[in-house]
Amino acid sequence: MSKLENHFETEDELAIGVDLGGSKIGIALVKKNGEIEKYIKIPTHAEQGQESTINRIKQGIYQVIEQKDLRINKISGIGIGAPGPVDYKEGVIHCAPNLPGWKEVPLANIVKDEFQIPVIMENDANVAAWGEKTFGVARGIDDMVCLAMGTGIGAGLILSGKIYHGKNNLAGEIGHIIVNKEGPRCNCGNYGCLEAYSSAAGIKNRLYSKINKLKADNQTPPFISDLDDISLVQIFKMAREGNEVVKDIVEEAIEYLGIGIATVINILNPEMIVLVGGLANEGDKLLNPLKEIIYKRAMSSHLPDLKIVFGKLGDYAGVIGAAALFWNYV
Amino acid sequence: MSKLENHFETEDELAIGVDLGGSKIGIALVKKNGEIEKYIKIPTHAEQGQESTINRIKQGIYQVIEQKDLRINKISGIGIGAPGPVDYKEGVIHCAPNLPGWKEVPLANIVKDEFQIPVIMENDANVAAWGEKTFGVARGIDDMVCLAMGTGIGAGLILSGKIYHGKNNLAGEIGHIIVNKEGPRCNCGNYGCLEAYSSAAGIKNRLYSKINKLKADNQTPPFISDLDDISLVQIFKMAREGNEVVKDIVEEAIEYLGIGIATVINILNPEMIVLVGGLANEGDKLLNPLKEIIYKRAMSSHLPDLKIVFGKLGDYAGVIGAAALFWNYV
Repeated sequence: MSKLENHFETEDELAIGVDLGGSKIGIALVKKNGEIEKYIKIPTHAEQGQESTINRIKQGIYQVIEQKDLRINKISGIGIGAPGPVDYKEGVIHCAPNLPGWKEVPLANIVKDEFQIPVIMENDANVAAWGEKTFGVARGIDDMVCLAMGTGIGAGLILSGKIYHGKNNLAGEIGHIIVNKEGPRCNCGNYGCLEAYSSAAGIKNRLYSKINKLKADNQTPPFISDLDDISLVQIFKMAREGNEVVKDIVEEAIEYLGIGIATVINILNPEMIVLVGGLANEGDKLLNPLKEIIYKRAMSSHLPDLKIVFGKLGDYAGVIGAAALFWNYV
Repeated sequence: MSKLENHFETEDELAIGVDLGGSKIGIALVKKNGEIEKYIKIPTHAEQGQESTINRIKQGIYQVIEQKDLRINKISGIGIGAPGPVDYKEGVIHCAPNLPGWKEVPLANIVKDEFQIPVIMENDANVAAWGEKTFGVARGIDDMVCLAMGTGIGAGLILSGKIYHGKNNLAGEIGHIIVNKEGPRCNCGNYGCLEAYSSAAGIKNRLYSKINKLKADNQTPPFISDLDDISLVQIFKMAREGNEVVKDIVEEAIEYLGIGIATVINILNPEMIVLVGGLANEGDKLLNPLKEIIYKRAMSSHLPDLKIVFGKLGDYAGVIGAAALFWNYV
């Protein structure tokens, strides 16, 4: 390759990032500086089955490429963030709670066979962490925990500058820190996991239990419309608006979240905790009480260099992080 | 270098390992296959001050070298395990709870100036972990937590085949996993740390509290001779011999230890947990109930490849691990 061609490649280098979720698939063409050149969002239609979803991914990628009128050989590769444990070396999704029927799916090879360019796949929490490290709030940070909060609580761990996977690519399950051995049952089957207190699903379960208890005691439970579909953001809003029952449960959720994060800090001594997901919009209303607990509960030796911040890539963390798997990733 | 000389060097390569403790200093000449060629153990005499202890280390090293009648240039280097947080890049001991007055001591450079060969220093928990990985029970294991139990509870983390240090070389404080937010006060100032339940110091404090409570209730507390100086091994023995008060506290200690280890497993997905320190002699009497709790409490997905074992280097883990810092260490 001539020097000129090499220069051209460096300036214009592009990668495709795919953010595969249970309800939506984000697909973007991303420049090497992290800018999104083109972005589409399509429904996953997981209920139509695995093959249908995979075809939608392929069509979405074609759509992004064609709209840019790009030749495929101008693209470094396709990065995929998948919603479940992933064998990143083999490019296989082991399973995905939000994609019924997906078991040991070699998605990376399927996509590679179609487009004949390199494909890398990672778990979505790892992808978000890598996005924040490469182009977001954690640039230059080598030891970082990127905590994704939503229905569940997961994390991507960046340790010594790299994604840390663990023996079976299952590292980062910080939602399953056991914060109270006598605590409520968690989806994992265990009791008293952080997730059972502080995730959207956990908080909802706590609310259901509390409402049932109030009813059993012949007291009037608070009115909550659409409890089944309520989001973490809505729950936090109700607590702020003075609903006492919700407020108690949210305060407990934040306390245990702070304690769980303090445990992670004591074990890993990270430089940064990045919070991503639905709660990122809460801002200081969440961050201030959370920091107060963390600063009280983590070892003082571990605090001086520590930063606790929200991610800055927002909804695009998935596609940007997936594309960024082609840059600086090892 | 000729092939013959090279062969000779490989066969005979040696390093010195120094295991600096609060009461004893172990110093050994270690062969590249992990065998100890020569070992001495001398008192630290920490009460005589820092300079005195450093001189004892130097004299000990000379003693080991002279007894082997070695020229110093036959030795790859001197590895030091230090009892406190260490800046391994600069070779500085930040502080050492068991070495009064030691603050920001550049011990690696001091020893290097004396012997004019490379010196590497690491925290003692990291050194033990590295020893078990290089020559002990964890050969070939890349993701491993080496849990050192004694007065406190610390750990060396081997992640992706390397010692993981964290931002300030403080990673591995698994004694400060918060297992019960309402729990007893810990030496770190926090409440409900694992160490407050399951370390020798924590168990003793629990015993004191229990004895005082029994006295206050006009009940007869169990007779325990020399409670101040009792070791973890003695406490476990009393529990097995049927002392009910001690038994309850020890069972709680094991339960919380299992829960803390389950938390570490969920976060890091290691392949192996290695238990070292005073408890290693307990064998299956400790390991069986501990495993039962871990297998109940950790995520089932994280268990299939997991091994939970005692270290096999025993009292020599420190000197062997310190010498091994010159081999395969990065």
